[in-house]
Amino acid sequence: MCKGDDTSCPHFELHYKKLKQDLNAERRGFLKSGLFAAGGMATLGAGGISLVTPALAQATTSKLPAQRAYHYLPANAETVHWGYFSKSLKPRIEVNSGDIVTIESLTHHAGDDLERMVEGDEGAESVYLWTKEKKGVDRRGAGPTDPAKYKKGSGEGQGVHIMTGPIYVRDAEPGDILEVRILDCMPRPSGNPKFGGKSYGVNAAANWGFHYNDLLGGTKREVVTIYEVDIAGGKSWAEAMYNFQWVPQTDPFGVTHDTIDYPGVPVDHSLTKRNYDVLKGVRLPIRPHFGTIGLAPKEADVVDTIPPSYTGGNIDNWRIGKGATMYYPVSVDGALLSVGDPHASQGDSELCGTAIECSLTGTFQLILHKKADLTGTPLEELNYPMLETQTDWLVHGFSYANYLEELGPSAQSDIYSKSSVDRALRDAFRKMRHFLMTTKGLTEDEAISLMSIGVDFGITQVVDGNWGVHAVVKKDIFAARTA
Amino acid sequence: MCKGDDTSCPHFELHYKKLKQDLNAERRGFLKSGLFAAGGMATLGAGGISLVTPALAQATTSKLPAQRAYHYLPANAETVHWGYFSKSLKPRIEVNSGDIVTIESLTHHAGDDLERMVEGDEGAESVYLWTKEKKGVDRRGAGPTDPAKYKKGSGEGQGVHIMTGPIYVRDAEPGDILEVRILDCMPRPSGNPKFGGKSYGVNAAANWGFHYNDLLGGTKREVVTIYEVDIAGGKSWAEAMYNFQWVPQTDPFGVTHDTIDYPGVPVDHSLTKRNYDVLKGVRLPIRPHFGTIGLAPKEADVVDTIPPSYTGGNIDNWRIGKGATMYYPVSVDGALLSVGDPHASQGDSELCGTAIECSLTGTFQLILHKKADLTGTPLEELNYPMLETQTDWLVHGFSYANYLEELGPSAQSDIYSKSSVDRALRDAFRKMRHFLMTTKGLTEDEAISLMSIGVDFGITQVVDGNWGVHAVVKKDIFAARTA
Repeated sequence: MCKGDDTSCPHFELHYKKLKQDLNAERRGFLKSGLFAAGGMATLGAGGISLVTPALAQATTSKLPAQRAYHYLPANAETVHWGYFSKSLKPRIEVNSGDIVTIESLTHHAGDDLERMVEGDEGAESVYLWTKEKKGVDRRGAGPTDPAKYKKGSGEGQGVHIMTGPIYVRDAEPGDILEVRILDCMPRPSGNPKFGGKSYGVNAAANWGFHYNDLLGGTKREVVTIYEVDIAGGKSWAEAMYNFQWVPQTDPFGVTHDTIDYPGVPVDHSLTKRNYDVLKGVRLPIRPHFGTIGLAPKEADVVDTIPPSYTGGNIDNWRIGKGATMYYPVSVDGALLSVGDPHASQGDSELCGTAIECSLTGTFQLILHKKADLTGTPLEELNYPMLETQTDWLVHGFSYANYLEELGPSAQSDIYSKSSVDRALRDAFRKMRHFLMTTKGLTEDEAISLMSIGVDFGITQVVDGNWGVHAVVKKDIFAARTA
Repeated sequence: MCKGDDTSCPHFELHYKKLKQDLNAERRGFLKSGLFAAGGMATLGAGGISLVTPALAQATTSKLPAQRAYHYLPANAETVHWGYFSKSLKPRIEVNSGDIVTIESLTHHAGDDLERMVEGDEGAESVYLWTKEKKGVDRRGAGPTDPAKYKKGSGEGQGVHIMTGPIYVRDAEPGDILEVRILDCMPRPSGNPKFGGKSYGVNAAANWGFHYNDLLGGTKREVVTIYEVDIAGGKSWAEAMYNFQWVPQTDPFGVTHDTIDYPGVPVDHSLTKRNYDVLKGVRLPIRPHFGTIGLAPKEADVVDTIPPSYTGGNIDNWRIGKGATMYYPVSVDGALLSVGDPHASQGDSELCGTAIECSLTGTFQLILHKKADLTGTPLEELNYPMLETQTDWLVHGFSYANYLEELGPSAQSDIYSKSSVDRALRDAFRKMRHFLMTTKGLTEDEAISLMSIGVDFGITQVVDGNWGVHAVVKKDIFAARTA
């Protein structure tokens, strides 16, 4: 029986509710960490078609500890790294395969409305703290941290996402696959009593957007729209509150930002003109998801969070929300998983540069599949991040599948001028072919025919340096296949 | 009340069933043409949000004849044109705005299995007739028709689709919008008693596919897969029957085709090796739709059917099926609508060059909106083909929005080397911006924000010369908007 951790179980919602009650009891008892009896093999790959075959589930389960731990990782200045992945980062927690972790994740756009998205929220306040003397989190990005070398700020904004973690997964080694099940995903309520019971998000039509050099009349402007996001679950949509055009903002260290070029700059609204007549009557169903979940790559020590790569990262696919399972190839010991870039909603392409950037809290189960157990299974040779939902499998193509390796020493700057959707489609085609041939045992000719008649290719994003195309194939077309 | 012609009516299926009974009675009585009382304004824009506002519906309806005619246009050598659009073609039928037309449409890939897709089917036999002395339809494509000038065959295969029509819509003039409602869409049963009650389609992984120069091992091959397609409606899926690799085929006029380079070449299966062990257990839900519905463009006289353009044509979006409504800008007097390229199923991107190419019969209602009535309505200034479904609006971007105009005299050859998904995305962005600003009265900033958080951009096709990206926006996000 599903223990509330198998999203493909028909009774997942009921089982998860029970698990949550248990977790809450654990949390009250053990404060941020607890242990409970593991469900054993039945918790893995129990329902429907999954990439995890029964044999693999058994091999993986045999390595789980007898008891499963529950962890709670809040987001604060001590538990986040801002704008970069690094294999050298000290893990915030260590977990065993099978453990469940609740992870708080903060949006890096909360500076656009501190009153609604930071004030009164202890964790967010510690991260966003920025006075003349001190920054709660100084480094933001993979750039220089020496004040003599940077112009915009420490880390230079070469990477922007507030990442909670990393999480060290015991026994994880290069060549293994880390399965990440998203059991739950909820918007974070405003900590400000003035906005109690509500949540907020930001959409910035920014200079890195696909639209930016193509505005009517040839003007250039960045426009930030603040959205109210349903958290009661009753409405399940977002509505615009107001927007404003970005005007130069001087940060507490005295640097003026003419454009949105450094994350977390606190916006002084005495300088902006807020327009409350925006998208009246437009109600957008929300699709809460994490824009960036990734492992530390081995190729470089400090890596910009913006371009996605083979270890995941900033994939920006709105389908990576509650009920989804991701599979990531492990690149370094301990896997070093971090979670950030939470979104309330996004469209395929993320056209203007951002989604509705909105803090979320997620609950995840992390399951390690050892390399030796992968032989002959669908996960063998998986060297790209793969998404499984209740109904679909998705591969993620990028302009460069592993840009750090392919573009060499200057990869982290070069990637921003070399992307195209065409290249990302090429990569998605190759990955889907690999998936269909490896996982389903199709010949190349079968795979290619099926891709043309039954696989949908969509534009994931064109704003993250390394552009993305995803390919979606429905699981049920294989329901009658025995091979 | 809906008269069975408003697909957004909640009781459409019931009403359409009634209409069909009436039509069948008419057909029996009047043989291929009939008249029945028009439903009046209530038949237009009656249910849900539509691009046709009540005022426009009233203006349009006031111009309808008191009686609505029903027409039946079979597909045969007399009613099709193969591989080209032309403003000079003699119309096969003339209709009034509001009329309903059933149109048979034949796939141009039936030569790959004549036994299943042509034999015993009188219409298809007349079109596919090709002996040493005679071709049922000689010209296939927009190329030269003089035997001294062509190498592959008349028309040179510069354009491949068998188009039924054109249909002349009375009073249609440049600047008007033709609304085409797809009321029904059914696979055509095999005419061969050996395959009674079944329907068949073809997927060709062809030389113009995105995969062709990227096969494993660097080989080059074209592979044709024959699919059986459900027509009873009980299964609603397609299954592969067999595949074969293309081998040189000599047509009845003595030209040898080393690759798939001319439409309708009858395949001699004594030369092929049929492989019946293909995609065992894979069952693909079908999505019957028309790859190519379009009006004759004014820019040139004989126009290749392959690249889509502002008058529609080969858009290859699988959502253009039963229940969908298309809006096309009229380019020449009478609109000159033709229908072809029927598909049983296709994935977004049509990666290998074709869908499941399968003859279909559709029933359409054609409604003319006069230019003078469009002012201030969502259809004002619509200069691109637009799709409306029950739930969504879609714009279609192309690498070149109007390639005939943009690329000049050599457009019809140049277009094949100039496309990119990036360009098509650019065009889709601009069109969606135009749509949101015109139709919904949004400002540019509102439109851009909404596009990033709530509009999905997908890859329609990368195999039709002029590549396509579609943008999908859900209607219900506007349900509460009064503007």
